[in-house]
Amino acid sequence: MTAGNTGRKRPTISDVARRAGVTKGAVSRALNSGTGVSTGTRDRIRQAAVELGWSPSYAARALNGKPLGTIGLVVRRSPEILDFDAFFPSFLSGIESVLSGEEHATVIRFVPDAQTEAATYERLFGDRFVDGFLVTDLRVDDERPAMLHRLGAPAVVVGAPEGSSDLPTITNDAEEAIRGLVRRFADAGHRRIAHVQGDRHMLHALQRRRHWEQAMREFGLEPGPVEYGGYTIVGGAQATERILARGGERPTAVFYGSDLMAIGGYSVLGESGLAIPADMAVAGFDDIPLASFASPPMTTVRSKHRALGSAGARILLDMLKGQEPPLSTVLTGELCIRDSSGDPA
Amino acid sequence: MTAGNTGRKRPTISDVARRAGVTKGAVSRALNSGTGVSTGTRDRIRQAAVELGWSPSYAARALNGKPLGTIGLVVRRSPEILDFDAFFPSFLSGIESVLSGEEHATVIRFVPDAQTEAATYERLFGDRFVDGFLVTDLRVDDERPAMLHRLGAPAVVVGAPEGSSDLPTITNDAEEAIRGLVRRFADAGHRRIAHVQGDRHMLHALQRRRHWEQAMREFGLEPGPVEYGGYTIVGGAQATERILARGGERPTAVFYGSDLMAIGGYSVLGESGLAIPADMAVAGFDDIPLASFASPPMTTVRSKHRALGSAGARILLDMLKGQEPPLSTVLTGELCIRDSSGDPA
Repeated sequence: MTAGNTGRKRPTISDVARRAGVTKGAVSRALNSGTGVSTGTRDRIRQAAVELGWSPSYAARALNGKPLGTIGLVVRRSPEILDFDAFFPSFLSGIESVLSGEEHATVIRFVPDAQTEAATYERLFGDRFVDGFLVTDLRVDDERPAMLHRLGAPAVVVGAPEGSSDLPTITNDAEEAIRGLVRRFADAGHRRIAHVQGDRHMLHALQRRRHWEQAMREFGLEPGPVEYGGYTIVGGAQATERILARGGERPTAVFYGSDLMAIGGYSVLGESGLAIPADMAVAGFDDIPLASFASPPMTTVRSKHRALGSAGARILLDMLKGQEPPLSTVLTGELCIRDSSGDPA
Repeated sequence: MTAGNTGRKRPTISDVARRAGVTKGAVSRALNSGTGVSTGTRDRIRQAAVELGWSPSYAARALNGKPLGTIGLVVRRSPEILDFDAFFPSFLSGIESVLSGEEHATVIRFVPDAQTEAATYERLFGDRFVDGFLVTDLRVDDERPAMLHRLGAPAVVVGAPEGSSDLPTITNDAEEAIRGLVRRFADAGHRRIAHVQGDRHMLHALQRRRHWEQAMREFGLEPGPVEYGGYTIVGGAQATERILARGGERPTAVFYGSDLMAIGGYSVLGESGLAIPADMAVAGFDDIPLASFASPPMTTVRSKHRALGSAGARILLDMLKGQEPPLSTVLTGELCIRDSSGDPA
């Protein structure tokens, strides 16, 4: 029974010492530095380690201060958001596309609160269990850049606005795409355009809102109502209900800060007998595979999740090799026009 | 500039030795075993390590054969499937719910092929970088159980049929739920019920198909056409196109092996002018949050992704403590009736 593996104790450094007929100290010396023992003894110790299946390589690397080839990702998101997340799987596959063969690995932790978050960063890097971090979901007044600086941990911030951190930052710049969207709405005669914001504290959510507000003012429009949708389908549905329940003239278009929230909007608009785009024009953000299969197909701003992962990992690996990273790398969002936003007049 | 962290070399065991005024061998002995050096020297070495920020705990644990508290997950899936995956984020959050505080971490690798997959398992466990594995997406003739046995690696198979592996297995048993679905279709008068299978080789895909076939025969129906949808939205759309393009009488119901494939089906059925459920009844599998927000809301079989993660992690952690694991743990799928499957007659 393979289940019996539990009973098979892992070989320890003592087992290696016993088999090689030497002291534990000699094993440590032979395996860590290779000095302080004779060549014959060292070979006997290494042979014993191989026979027992005791492989010291990562421990030895760590003892010598060499990087393990691990990238750390500490994610503070609620299980509700993770349950059906449009970002992390493709972001992880982007990271992975840069890690080579068996030499690297991603170490991931989901944490519930700020305290566990800080302790997790400290433990992972303090133990040198990871070589550096990709930092996502940067928040207003985020303490992580200062903390990582204090730890001396190499880190790259991914998906935050330019200049939002002293750490090297990869920005997903959607300003032009959002301006193009608002222009299109304005050209079609929309005057009241609502926004559903993903989160109150995450910089990427604030940035999308600001780009929308700027564009609205640029086209002579008053930024319409804003509701919060928590980046989930159900949150997007509830935000849409609140928009429809407001007094005064109803908006005729909604820009959702994520496609998933817009899908929640589709559902509520359908139940309310409002046709998309005739009664309410809709646009999302992300361009998840679902967007083009929604009914009607969804206009959205394409965000390059996989490219964010690969660019982040590449810069971090370069830093670990001692290269000076670019302080700012900008990927550009792209407006994908489909049926849900209607035609310009 | 924090970017300058790249220039700050990590403290090595040599740095600790220099600061403490001892040999590297003495540092190894002091930090690994605590023996072979005087108490005063040991304290001086530990103090130097603390001052330099050199934390030996995980390396020392490894050198002594102690578990690091890491769970390994090696995922062989194409980037296309990962781009918008309904399983992994909530599965990971289930694993995470069991890992305690800062003591544990999940090490994840995505691999493109069988060769890299095998090498990755061997490297991660050979180096004792992970304590054990959760094994997902078990395939026909999967070589991983035998390989993990050979490595002596504690491992739990998640989401495969009972008895499909010598490793402890957590099964997502949907037999009753799928029978209930087929019964409902049969009661409504459906005679030709198609199936869209996710994958040709993954056991969970084969299992869903077999339960559908068994139930069809049980209710006196010939299992209808089967198409493959690759577990993606676009694959589900293409499979639906193939079902509609077949000669002979068209099926009146389709059971999709995943909700995402069913969403692809919704799109193609809509474009073909076929109403759900009047012209084609539809059911999915998973119960992702999207299912209840689809139009019409989707009948599906609820699969407990998060519970699979938490059960897998709990059993693996118990194994690492030396407990004998249950060879089979069964979670039961649940039929969620919504509008897409229509009413029984």
